[in-house]
Amino acid sequence: MIQAKIAEILESDQFLQEFHIRGWVRSFRSNRFIALNDGSTINNLQCVIDFENTSEETLKRINVGAAISVKGTLQESQGSQQRVEVEVQELKILGDANPDEVKLTILSPKKHSLEKLREQAHLRVRTNTFGAVMRLRSKLSFAVHKYFQEKNFYYVNTPIITGSDAEGAGEMFKVTAMDLKNPSKNEDGSINYKDDFFGKETNLTVSGQLEAETFALALGQVYTFGPTFRAENSNTSRHLAEFWMIEPEVAFCDLDGNMDLAEDFIKYVIKYVLENCQEDLEFLNKRFVTENNAKPKLERSEMDLLEKLNFVLDNNFKRVSYTEAIEILKNSKPNKKKKFNYIIEEWGADLQSEHERFLVEKHFKSPVILFDYPAKIKAFYMRLNEDGKTVRAMDILFPGIGEIVGGSQREERLDVLKEKMQELNIPEEELWWYLDTRKFGTCVHSGFGLGFERLVQFATGMSNIRDVIPFPRTPQNAEF
Amino acid sequence: MIQAKIAEILESDQFLQEFHIRGWVRSFRSNRFIALNDGSTINNLQCVIDFENTSEETLKRINVGAAISVKGTLQESQGSQQRVEVEVQELKILGDANPDEVKLTILSPKKHSLEKLREQAHLRVRTNTFGAVMRLRSKLSFAVHKYFQEKNFYYVNTPIITGSDAEGAGEMFKVTAMDLKNPSKNEDGSINYKDDFFGKETNLTVSGQLEAETFALALGQVYTFGPTFRAENSNTSRHLAEFWMIEPEVAFCDLDGNMDLAEDFIKYVIKYVLENCQEDLEFLNKRFVTENNAKPKLERSEMDLLEKLNFVLDNNFKRVSYTEAIEILKNSKPNKKKKFNYIIEEWGADLQSEHERFLVEKHFKSPVILFDYPAKIKAFYMRLNEDGKTVRAMDILFPGIGEIVGGSQREERLDVLKEKMQELNIPEEELWWYLDTRKFGTCVHSGFGLGFERLVQFATGMSNIRDVIPFPRTPQNAEF
Repeated sequence: MIQAKIAEILESDQFLQEFHIRGWVRSFRSNRFIALNDGSTINNLQCVIDFENTSEETLKRINVGAAISVKGTLQESQGSQQRVEVEVQELKILGDANPDEVKLTILSPKKHSLEKLREQAHLRVRTNTFGAVMRLRSKLSFAVHKYFQEKNFYYVNTPIITGSDAEGAGEMFKVTAMDLKNPSKNEDGSINYKDDFFGKETNLTVSGQLEAETFALALGQVYTFGPTFRAENSNTSRHLAEFWMIEPEVAFCDLDGNMDLAEDFIKYVIKYVLENCQEDLEFLNKRFVTENNAKPKLERSEMDLLEKLNFVLDNNFKRVSYTEAIEILKNSKPNKKKKFNYIIEEWGADLQSEHERFLVEKHFKSPVILFDYPAKIKAFYMRLNEDGKTVRAMDILFPGIGEIVGGSQREERLDVLKEKMQELNIPEEELWWYLDTRKFGTCVHSGFGLGFERLVQFATGMSNIRDVIPFPRTPQNAEF
Repeated sequence: MIQAKIAEILESDQFLQEFHIRGWVRSFRSNRFIALNDGSTINNLQCVIDFENTSEETLKRINVGAAISVKGTLQESQGSQQRVEVEVQELKILGDANPDEVKLTILSPKKHSLEKLREQAHLRVRTNTFGAVMRLRSKLSFAVHKYFQEKNFYYVNTPIITGSDAEGAGEMFKVTAMDLKNPSKNEDGSINYKDDFFGKETNLTVSGQLEAETFALALGQVYTFGPTFRAENSNTSRHLAEFWMIEPEVAFCDLDGNMDLAEDFIKYVIKYVLENCQEDLEFLNKRFVTENNAKPKLERSEMDLLEKLNFVLDNNFKRVSYTEAIEILKNSKPNKKKKFNYIIEEWGADLQSEHERFLVEKHFKSPVILFDYPAKIKAFYMRLNEDGKTVRAMDILFPGIGEIVGGSQREERLDVLKEKMQELNIPEEELWWYLDTRKFGTCVHSGFGLGFERLVQFATGMSNIRDVIPFPRTPQNAEF
């Protein structure tokens, strides 16, 4: 008797071999055919029971959602739906699922909306769609680590609770151990953070970049892969309050090297899931096609999911300077015909997602790397170009997703960096340790940030970011 | 000209080949020999310069901590300290390090205490000790993912911000987007969380277990590896307010299977670093021996670091029930002679770290798995044994570290679980989703939690947990 996962059994040629399988009933028809799933694959194992020799009592308990144990022999299947099946010799009910209660959940065998599934995030992973998404997410995570480790990058866990709020990447959540009803206060009524757990004001990190830089300037090349947070009231299909970010940082690497790294990295991880998640991707592709066909013609993607993934693999990302992009946008039809919500009038304008989508989906029809942005619309730590008005920043834009990567060469010159911080009123005392890295053996270095959920969205074709993370955190929602 | 990392060059046989190397100066002696490090290895590359043909100006700038670029040819070294060296043809200073300023930092070439190094956590990774620790930490992280992925576990990112505080694993940090000075209040003076970002009270997670269980009961076997938090005022060498935890969870797995998994897992990751971090481990071993020899004889470890790691690999973890352990402790010398701070008098006592250390270090001289603890001293979700008074819990105890793993078979019976929650006043409404997993296809399942930093401590021989995480968070400290 071999104890095995369904993924293995479905590939097995050991006919007549006895197997022991445990899983959850996905369907039961004709009092004979159980479709059993154990999470190891999207595919179910057909288990055929001899209903004449199965008690009425047991038959009644083989309900959708129930956990069962099955012992039986592997057979070639007579049916056209599957290659193999298991002829059941022994069946045990491990955990019941009362059909009347199941009916009230998303486990009930009918089509549920993604919104409905989200309300039961603890159960949705038992559905085909979310099983596929979460398995793929796991493989994609591993591909991230594998890529960097093979390239001898070191993984660094930058702090989640941070005492520095100087980075300005977005609104931050506060972290405190004080009683909110009655926090310690100074005489002037301000909060006395000296009495808080850390003895100072603390927040949830918006990025591990600055800390990662300190490590890159010691270990050479490092990456983070951890949770980051934004307390922004953005109730959209593209934003989460808590999401996972990947941030490589490389010493002695300029912006060109940074673009090469980002492109190579994305291609590697996409290739990895194409090779390691075939069945889940086939399912997600069908899902994508169905959803796509239901859309108004103008909004439809020309490619299916698998075509999109292969398209990224097969094509060089188009590298375009911000200045070129502005020219293209200024002269574009939607700009001239005032179809954009924000009309591009002059150099210096911040690009909105409608502009990014135009460049990627209509103009270049390819992933695009925009670089050399105006200094004014980018962060303080980006390296100023010799023109004195642009910085060595880059954003990678993807079809259907928009910005998936944001990165830059970092300002390595202490004097320029200090000047910029002064201009933006960033207190030097807050970032003394960051400035130290420019005092002691500073060097050209670069890095980028990639929002992991955006990547999972791209790889799964899911249109709402809430559907690619196990338990999404969004305004008014921290259930589970 | 080959651009290469020092780790590669030190292994190279390409004599007379030209290499381009960039790194930081670790030492410079006789105006000739630069010890260069680029973080790729603990070892330095000796770069020999022709000082007669190097400008005075440049020579003055080759200071400890400076970043330089070197082009030169690989040569067999005449010195006995190294196999190869680089004869420098071209040297550029990329980033200076002013010796007067370096003197004020831990980069200055003398021995600094670990406490002092902690105050400059942004620079300490440039030292041999912390470079070695952080490289090893990175490899160990990857080994964790590799182990589970090879075994077809799925990685699940459980939420960091959590709306449920029912778990009772420890004091929690509060997360809020409200103004602490002036939070929204109800008429009765209590905080009106409806006005907060999530519309409810939220905290930083203490464990992803309950959420991981929901995924295990769908995907079969999963693991988490993410940050967890404790707002406990424990200013010890064993506690962090923010630390990384690994929590596998397996459906259809009982406590024996859980113990097997934990032991196999730990052995795998230790083996991985023994094979992949040889040079760093050799350095850390020497460091360990020096530190060990400086201790009072009674406190000294009998084994060096490498011996300890191999000892874990070569020996079965001793499995002992709590009841047996209590008997051993009751009859032990330190108990009878009242040397323990807490004297063990009867069954039911919670074990302190002095007892755990006695069992591991004196009695069994082996890693120990204690199991079947009294229900009263363990968490609500652990499976009650047929005796009605013990639960299927297990702790793994390691020499020098104490508890490194805590796990259990989970209570899969809805009625028993509900009863237990009632007893402990855990409101069912809080955990409706957790209870759902017991309603729909419940089954035997188990899991454990392993504090990653404890594992890094064990593998590196570092005695303070603050020295194995990049930027430690402890009471009164959230710098960087």
